[in-house]
Order: sequence, then structure tokens, then C-alpha cells
Amino acid sequence: MKFEIKSKDGAARTCIISTVHGEIKTPAFMPVGTAGSVKTLENKELDALGADIILSNAYHLYLRPGTETLQQLGGLHKFMGWNKPILIDSGGYQVLSLAARRKVEEEGVRFQSHIDGSYHLFTPEKVIEIQRSIGADFIMPLDELVGYPVEKNMADDAAQRTWRWLERSFEAFNSSTSLYDNEQVLIPIVQGSFYNDLRQREAERLASLEAEAYAIGGLAIGEAVDQRQEAIDISVKYLPENKPRYAMGIGLPQDLLDSIGRGIDLFDCVVPTRNGRNATLFTPEGRLNLRNAKFASDENPIEDGCPCPCCTQYSRAYLHHLYKSKEILALKLGSAHNLSYYFRLMEDARMHIEHGDFANWMSEIISAS
Amino acid sequence: MKFEIKSKDGAARTCIISTVHGEIKTPAFMPVGTAGSVKTLENKELDALGADIILSNAYHLYLRPGTETLQQLGGLHKFMGWNKPILIDSGGYQVLSLAARRKVEEEGVRFQSHIDGSYHLFTPEKVIEIQRSIGADFIMPLDELVGYPVEKNMADDAAQRTWRWLERSFEAFNSSTSLYDNEQVLIPIVQGSFYNDLRQREAERLASLEAEAYAIGGLAIGEAVDQRQEAIDISVKYLPENKPRYAMGIGLPQDLLDSIGRGIDLFDCVVPTRNGRNATLFTPEGRLNLRNAKFASDENPIEDGCPCPCCTQYSRAYLHHLYKSKEILALKLGSAHNLSYYFRLMEDARMHIEHGDFANWMSEIISAS
Repeated sequence: MKFEIKSKDGAARTCIISTVHGEIKTPAFMPVGTAGSVKTLENKELDALGADIILSNAYHLYLRPGTETLQQLGGLHKFMGWNKPILIDSGGYQVLSLAARRKVEEEGVRFQSHIDGSYHLFTPEKVIEIQRSIGADFIMPLDELVGYPVEKNMADDAAQRTWRWLERSFEAFNSSTSLYDNEQVLIPIVQGSFYNDLRQREAERLASLEAEAYAIGGLAIGEAVDQRQEAIDISVKYLPENKPRYAMGIGLPQDLLDSIGRGIDLFDCVVPTRNGRNATLFTPEGRLNLRNAKFASDENPIEDGCPCPCCTQYSRAYLHHLYKSKEILALKLGSAHNLSYYFRLMEDARMHIEHGDFANWMSEIISAS
Repeated sequence: MKFEIKSKDGAARTCIISTVHGEIKTPAFMPVGTAGSVKTLENKELDALGADIILSNAYHLYLRPGTETLQQLGGLHKFMGWNKPILIDSGGYQVLSLAARRKVEEEGVRFQSHIDGSYHLFTPEKVIEIQRSIGADFIMPLDELVGYPVEKNMADDAAQRTWRWLERSFEAFNSSTSLYDNEQVLIPIVQGSFYNDLRQREAERLASLEAEAYAIGGLAIGEAVDQRQEAIDISVKYLPENKPRYAMGIGLPQDLLDSIGRGIDLFDCVVPTRNGRNATLFTPEGRLNLRNAKFASDENPIEDGCPCPCCTQYSRAYLHHLYKSKEILALKLGSAHNLSYYFRLMEDARMHIEHGDFANWMSEIISAS
């Protein structure tokens, strides 16, 4: 992986991350394809919408199709026919939110599959082994997550364990190699809940690892905006400047812009695709709920000038009809439009960072929507 | 509408139907878009797959979005952004199969909406009025359907009523005009269950109307193959030769080919799209059930050389994974592949009719699958 900072505007920056699967221009948004499919969309459609990289999930892929199948078929890129970069989350969050029963021990996390109730153990080493089988360009280690709000001693314990697991993860990572023709980059995650001293401590010791990229975790879980902003600011302050920074699970358009203004390069979130399936469409004037009766005879596209397959072919009235009739096509058109909106927002952000007027532009965008 | 017979090979024939919305090369398969959407597929995708014409349904469109909305928005073509020909079924079958309660009277059919339980009356005149609001190129009159098997006197009564309703339909049709910029063609339907004398009588009196196209109804409802073949043969025998013939609701690939060999030009059926959503994929070697574990690591496409978005991008293994994971993309890829298979089958049929070897080719295709 090669990382190059192209321009700066305050803390915001544009960068290029180069991999054997292609370049990622940052700030970049990574659409989520939990089970190896960004829901409703073909690869060529994702490509045309502007995706430089997609995200998938080790928990889901481990349970189905399973690492044996993935390895036999040459890894996830080949399995799903996607030739651009992929980032794979560890599945720690999915164990927390989906698995039937789970128990965190020093060794790792024991859980039952949400699919068939079978028993599994994710250790830091096991997750690296799974990540090797999947073969993504960017991989995340197992970490221990806490909810919000959480007592400081619990947040501290989880952060300490996350650090011990990270050391084991890097050991397993460094004593193994990629199974396919691409390099893999292991991205450590800053935890510490919303306690500034914990965040600082974790960011500082992660920085000492001289990793190739860094993530900030435990965000967008119910905290106040200023708590999130502070957690990002402290993490950014103590992480190295010359490495990509990824804020996991953020989020809404205004939160992406705010975080870009604080130095974040990479984002992932289910918001655009999940909202698209739920009839909530993003536009420069704000969100539209397409189930609303006022759209029943609205001949306008969702967003004037939008190049997505929804706006170039269909009216709001037709989309309203599709959502009301529970037509599958609605889910796809809504997802495609929202992703187009997000990718264009990132493209505009890059342009305004390069022009040096990011902050003003961001204020305008946020107040218009 | 203009209708031209291009070539004949036995009873099979290739024709061109010309409308202001474009040409239909027959034999042609019309994909079903019940509620104004061929499920999962965009217009441009249908176009690329090879659809010359699509079918939708008056019952569904009348209930939602409603004729007022459709008329306000300039008719169905404009509403759904589809610029090629459309055929609209009357909804008689949907009243029978979907409506909560229904009662057939001489005036028409009373029923309750399956959506909100509201009360409605479809008369022959009302259906023409609805068809005028929808504005399709080809429209079907209200008819009375019977199940299978049915006593002869009941089949006779229904056929007689269908004839009386047809006279009223043509009266309403001839005393009204198209609301949009396209001609509308009203297609009478031969009924009579599987009683040859009833079929003959209905075909003869429909022929006397000198309509622009004819449909054969009441097929593919559980009858034996030879019953269906006989019903088609008698209908074709007594209908005029120089008009398009449409066999409603057929069906499986081998049934399409068999019916083409008996002189049928147009088909519609939910089979390719519904099967596609249910993981059953058509190939020259027969049907594949993609949920079957044997496909879990099969790197081949569904069908070698198929130009559809499924076969050009994805393996059977990946499609198996998508169906097992209940991913929405599977429903779309399966539908697209099956429609591609049907359209290519019709294209091949046209070519072999023109080459004069249709019967031999058909035998080979049927025995291989």
C-alpha cells in the first residue's frame, strides 16, 4: 500500500491510497456489503456509481459461505467478482449485535451463530486466519466493544484487552502471509469510549506500532455530537499524520463532512443503503420520505442532475408507487441514488479541500440540507 | 398497428407488429410487470436483455396508483418511463385469484380490493375506461374465467357471458378514443375451456369481429398437454390467419416452442421472473436449482456464453451464496438470466422458422433440456 497526501485545508486533506486493486481517492465513503454483496447492486453498478472500495464483514463471511469455500475459490475478490479494493471488518460488532449468545474471555469471544446456533470461538489469531482466507486489502483485528454510556473502569478494561488482543493480532499477522496476489494491511482501532485520557492513551500506543493505517472505533453508538467530535479530535491528534485515518460507522452526510474537517479520510456506514431500502432518499435539500403521499404525482426526479439510474429514468411519483407496492426495484433505485449522493458529496469535498474553501462549502451544504 | 407475416415454416411463423412505440418481432415473449414494474429490473436493463414489449395489469394499476394519477401523469408509458409497447391484461384473472370477495353478475364483477378491502365493480365498460386511462398499446377486455376442470354447461355459460361482455367492451371501445399519442388495440379472447365445440364456436364468432389481434385464454390452468394443444389448434384454425395470435399465460420454454409450432405469436408468463426469484434458473441443459449444495463451489456461470448481467459477472458459487443469504441481488440476477434465456429462445425460434428447420430445432432443444 502507498499513501500520499495531496492537499490540505485546515485539518481536512485529500489523499491517494494505492493498492494492487487500484487507487482510493480520499475522503472516501465505503459502501457496506455485509455478506459479500452491497445489497441490491451489481459490481458494475457500484463501479458506475463511483465506489473506489467496498466493505464486508468477517463474521458473516466466516459463517457463510465459510473460509474453506472462499479459500478454494481464490478469496473474496474472485468469489464476488469485485476487482477494486475491499476492507473487511473483524466481526466483533456483529458478534455483539447478532450472535445468539456470546461470552468475552481473555482468549477471545465465544458465540453461537445467528444462522444455525452452532458454537464458535473468535480469538485474535483466529480472526487473522479468517482474514487471510478472505484476502481483503484492508483487514481489522478483533477488538472488545462497549456500549454507550459505559462506566470508565469498564471502558478501560475493554481498551486494555483490545490492546492485548491487538498485540496477539499483529503477532499472528506478521507470522503469516497473504494467500493471494495482494498485500494485506492490518488496521488497529483506537477505542476508549468517550473518556479523553483513555482515547489519548490508546491513540499513543497504537501510534507506537507504526501501522500502515489507523481506525477510530466505538463511535456513532448514541453519543452526543460534541462527544464524537472530541473523541475524533483526540485520536487524530495522537495518531501519526502520514497514515490514513478511518472513522468506523459514521454516518450521516453532515457527520461525514464534520469528520473530514477534523482529518478523517475513510468512512463506512449502512445509512445510505439501509435508508434507500426504507424509502428515505438524500438530496442537497435534505432527506425525502418517498412514502409520503405528497410525492404520488410528483414528476420530478429525486434530485435534479443526479446521474444515478433512479434519477435518470424515473420520477418521484413512480418511486413512490414502487415503495407503496413493495416492489423490489424500489430498494435498488433508492440504494443507488443514496450511494450516488454520498460519492458525489465525497467528490465535492475533495474538490473544495483542494480549492482551500472546504469549511465555507461545508457550512453551506449543512445549512441547505 | 401494422401486422406483417415475414416467413412461415409449417404453422409456425415470424411476423412484425408495428406500433408508434416500436416494432415487436414475433414469436415474442412479454415479461410480466404486474404493478407497473417487471420485478427487480430497470427499464434500461429490460431493454438490454431484449424485451420488445412488456405486460402489466389493469386490476393492479387501477387499485394502485389509480387511474386518476395515471391520467394526470400522462398514462403508464410516461409514468413508468417505458417507451416500447405495453399490453395490459384486464384484471379478470386477478379479481378471481386475489380479490377478497367477488361476485360475478351480468353487469360485471363485484369485488373487494386485496389491498384495503374497499368495494369495486368491474364492468366491461369500466375496464375499457380504465384501459383508456392506462393507455397501453394493446388492451384486453373483461372476460369470465372458469377453473379446471369445469362442467360443460358452466364453461358454456361463462363463454356466452364473455361474448356478451365482449360486445359491450367493443361498444365502449369504439365510442371512446385514446387519451394519449398512441393507438390502442382491443384484443378479444377465445374461451370455452377444453370443450372443442365451445372453443370452435367462440373462435368463429370472434373472427367475425375482424379485430386487429386475437388472444386464446383459459390455458395453463392445470389441463393436460394434449388438451392445451387441442385448444390452441382449434382456436388457431378458426381465427383469421393474418392477425397476431396471443396465447395467454404460457409458460415453460418447451410449451412456448410447442405453441409456436401451432401458430402462436405472443406469450406472457410469470415463469421466468418468478422462477428467477425462487433460485430456479433456465439453461439449454435444463433447469438448475441454485440452492442446491452442489453449486457452493461451482465457478462456472449459470450458462456459458449468456450475455446477461448474472452470467457475465458472477459464478454459480456466488449466486448460490446470494440465494442462501437471502440477498436481494440474487432475485435480480436470477430474473435477468431467465428473461435473457427466454428472449434468446424466441430469437433462435425466429431464426429457425426463417431457415425452415423449426421443427427439427425444436425437437433438439426440448430433448436436450
